[in-house]
Amino acid sequence: MEALATTPTASSADQTVFETEPARYQHWKLSIDNERANLVMAVDDEHPHKPGYELKLNSYDLSVDIELADAILRLRFEHPEIKVLVITAELDRVFCSGANIYMLGLSTHSFKVNFCKFTNETRLYLEDASASSGLASLAACKGTTAGGGYELALACDDIMLVDDGNSAVSFPETPLLAVLPGTGGLTRLVDKRRIRRDRADVFCTTAEGIKGKRAKDWGLVDDVVSRSKWDETVATRAKALAAKQTVTRGPAVKLPALAPKITDQAFTYGHVTLSFDRAARTGELVVRGPDKAGVVDLTSPDTWSLQAFRELDDALLRLRFDLPDIGMVTVRTVGDRSAVITHDEQLASATTGFAREIRLLQRRVLKRFDNTARSFYAVADRADSCFAGSLLELALGADRFYMLIDKDEAIGVALSVANAGFMTMATGLSRLEARFYGDAPRIQALLARKDAVIPSEEAEQLGLATVAADDIDFEDELRIAIEERASLSPDALTGMEQSLRFVGPETLETKIFGRLSAWQNWIFTRANSTGAHGALTLYGQPERPQFQWKRT
Amino acid sequence: MEALATTPTASSADQTVFETEPARYQHWKLSIDNERANLVMAVDDEHPHKPGYELKLNSYDLSVDIELADAILRLRFEHPEIKVLVITAELDRVFCSGANIYMLGLSTHSFKVNFCKFTNETRLYLEDASASSGLASLAACKGTTAGGGYELALACDDIMLVDDGNSAVSFPETPLLAVLPGTGGLTRLVDKRRIRRDRADVFCTTAEGIKGKRAKDWGLVDDVVSRSKWDETVATRAKALAAKQTVTRGPAVKLPALAPKITDQAFTYGHVTLSFDRAARTGELVVRGPDKAGVVDLTSPDTWSLQAFRELDDALLRLRFDLPDIGMVTVRTVGDRSAVITHDEQLASATTGFAREIRLLQRRVLKRFDNTARSFYAVADRADSCFAGSLLELALGADRFYMLIDKDEAIGVALSVANAGFMTMATGLSRLEARFYGDAPRIQALLARKDAVIPSEEAEQLGLATVAADDIDFEDELRIAIEERASLSPDALTGMEQSLRFVGPETLETKIFGRLSAWQNWIFTRANSTGAHGALTLYGQPERPQFQWKRT
Repeated sequence: MEALATTPTASSADQTVFETEPARYQHWKLSIDNERANLVMAVDDEHPHKPGYELKLNSYDLSVDIELADAILRLRFEHPEIKVLVITAELDRVFCSGANIYMLGLSTHSFKVNFCKFTNETRLYLEDASASSGLASLAACKGTTAGGGYELALACDDIMLVDDGNSAVSFPETPLLAVLPGTGGLTRLVDKRRIRRDRADVFCTTAEGIKGKRAKDWGLVDDVVSRSKWDETVATRAKALAAKQTVTRGPAVKLPALAPKITDQAFTYGHVTLSFDRAARTGELVVRGPDKAGVVDLTSPDTWSLQAFRELDDALLRLRFDLPDIGMVTVRTVGDRSAVITHDEQLASATTGFAREIRLLQRRVLKRFDNTARSFYAVADRADSCFAGSLLELALGADRFYMLIDKDEAIGVALSVANAGFMTMATGLSRLEARFYGDAPRIQALLARKDAVIPSEEAEQLGLATVAADDIDFEDELRIAIEERASLSPDALTGMEQSLRFVGPETLETKIFGRLSAWQNWIFTRANSTGAHGALTLYGQPERPQFQWKRT
Repeated sequence: MEALATTPTASSADQTVFETEPARYQHWKLSIDNERANLVMAVDDEHPHKPGYELKLNSYDLSVDIELADAILRLRFEHPEIKVLVITAELDRVFCSGANIYMLGLSTHSFKVNFCKFTNETRLYLEDASASSGLASLAACKGTTAGGGYELALACDDIMLVDDGNSAVSFPETPLLAVLPGTGGLTRLVDKRRIRRDRADVFCTTAEGIKGKRAKDWGLVDDVVSRSKWDETVATRAKALAAKQTVTRGPAVKLPALAPKITDQAFTYGHVTLSFDRAARTGELVVRGPDKAGVVDLTSPDTWSLQAFRELDDALLRLRFDLPDIGMVTVRTVGDRSAVITHDEQLASATTGFAREIRLLQRRVLKRFDNTARSFYAVADRADSCFAGSLLELALGADRFYMLIDKDEAIGVALSVANAGFMTMATGLSRLEARFYGDAPRIQALLARKDAVIPSEEAEQLGLATVAADDIDFEDELRIAIEERASLSPDALTGMEQSLRFVGPETLETKIFGRLSAWQNWIFTRANSTGAHGALTLYGQPERPQFQWKRT
């Protein structure tokens, strides 16, 4: 613990710290070997996220997953030479035994759901790095690969399993714990790896899992390899994956610390502030635009487009985990619209991998925003309001957008290249396409007015704002809307927002957050898993679970 | 109640009756006027499905919805001349106030979920009739149209709302009851009617709803019409809908009664038997093929293809509602494979609307099977097993398929034209496409062997069977698999099956059953709706709900 005295990675009772760096990892060892990175899972069982359980057998909790997310992010930005990430384990006979079950048993429902959401996002980031950034991944499973351990492997491009007569991949969640493999596992089995649904059914109800040739025949893994040929085969397969990568990243930049100031009223970053009123159960998120127009240093990690969105990401995670009662959040922007547009344009036209990485990060952060279970009302009510381009995405992604009509028409919105299709939601639609679903001509007409200011009243007529009102009505209307929203059942609002936000097509990603996670959330509330006699509750104890048998 | 003495439509404590006919309707009045049918909602508040609540203000429960489903079915088969169905209400100022809230408050979680599933299926059948059978629908809402009432309207092709300064369409579920409009409403708002998501957000949190011009401007209804022009406009719009229909049905047939024999061991129909063992919590579904090959009377409502699937449908509904503890069901078929194939072929090549209606009914019944929250293992272990063509769909739709290898190779499967793509799942994929997701060549190769018998061992090699075993192993393997399945948590199995069965694309239909229903199920378990101080529990009482504020 000595090294942590001044820069805590562990979390205090009411604060979760999502920032870390490889030198401070407690659960992973990251090393670089030419074009290959090795990420060795070596979970320190004595350093769980919260006291009360031990992280035995490379089981994981939030603290482990925060480091994994950090490793993926840093490889993208700080190590552009890396083309393949090999994930292994330090234990000899265990790759990873999944999410720690005692941790799940001790956690509140709200924490369990947020934990699963975060781990799901991290696994999708592995896939995004492969699909968009020339960073493939190989899960080298030299031992037991169970539950969330196998779900981590499923998020990799290639899965190797050791053929030692013992090591299996498995999903014991349903037979042993009466819950689902909820970190994308069920969806990836049939949708990504296209395993036949009846075989997936057998696999998911066979607690001991499937090993050896059968695991390969069924498509559960890509190769089974003996211990004697293990290292050689890992090297060969990693090399083959690296050779396939065509996207290049770089130049390398070192990501600076975010260093927010955390108080009981606000989280304050350089460009982002999240303040909150615990009594009213409301919050206000403010994102400030770049300082001045025209100067965009696309070689610096301090560039606004990267730093502001990293801060926003951190604030959203803290909102999810540390402010569970803050259900209603207003979103404001401050700054110079043309400066945002300039940043968006330079980012879009830049040919460096670094610029692409920034846009991909912005896209992921905006997806995190879409998937945050809070009501968001965007508000433009100041002359220096700055809903332009990449910041306009926040208004398009919010549940509602309130705009004040001012005489000078200083308040308005502006589109940029950032709204033209790159910033897709999990559905694959841009936020404009989701807003005007199926109405391509209207979207084209809006994009044709790119860079120009659209004042509040017109923004409402064009469907960009939900409500535009003059100063006689605005304040009251907004205040009442916020109070009403904050008075509604948080559960019903989450379900409602999940249905209205994700219009249109579904993808593997939306199936994981919509279908799979919704069922898992339901199951987590059921007595058969989390009741006094439920399987999750009783795990590791001699008493056997007692089930209520009604099928629902 | 006099007329019901011998043919009960109401349900006894342990028996739900899904069969009815217009002459026995208690809650609707069906009349025929040339090419237009009028279905008038006139809910008899003194005849609820179960005692304990009154069906005030055209609110509905299962008994009301069973009649609605019957009316749609009979119009398709018995009244091919009907091109448009106009749904109205007998009350003067109320169209329909939605599902009865006291009924929901009194119901078990399991019943609520099954009730919502059934009402969702019925609304999808309205849309199916319009999309596939030349039967359009018009919701003529001459009064308050709230909650499930508006969801019924959303399932119609055209929605008229009276413009009387008072009548609104509304979704008060979230603000008043802390639940969702769970009968497809949220999905249809944004995905079907393409209402802007921020407007949908405002609408779904405004308990009093939206009326008049605004309802039309937002796309919530297709027209708002004054009382004085009401009847005339209904006639005009109905006529316009009728004129657009190009698909013709017929000839007309009168659907015969199914008349199952119901005991505490089995439900027995002409071609279908569902027997069950309450102690073991297992059931056995047996479907018998047509009596002999070659003779298919495609003018008779007694034809096997129709009658067997209607019986199967009824058995599945009784399984869902009346046998909640029977979680594991084996599915066997008996008969002559070539006779099934002959029926499938004649049905596929027939040019009558009646034949098309039969195939569409088969498709809907098979979707009901896919969406039934029970574990299904198909079993072929008798020489007269008959998994051919339309009956093979049951094996392809089951979670697993066990086949006995017999020396004579009498046991086998056979494909027919019925497996070639018409019998799509809710995802839009055929069951072969779902089984071999993305593997078109394999599907083509299988379909090339149409009509030929594929013995058990080869069926396993080809991926049609999950397990093929000889008589030394078969019985034990199947017995253990059944016992194991019946021992697992029913909740976890439902969530698992919902994820594995619906591989591939999602549609409005799967979004309703996957995303929307899963969230609704979760919300139904939450204290904020159904706890002692929950909004659904306290509805109609002076006490105000108390919410737990954690956002999840």
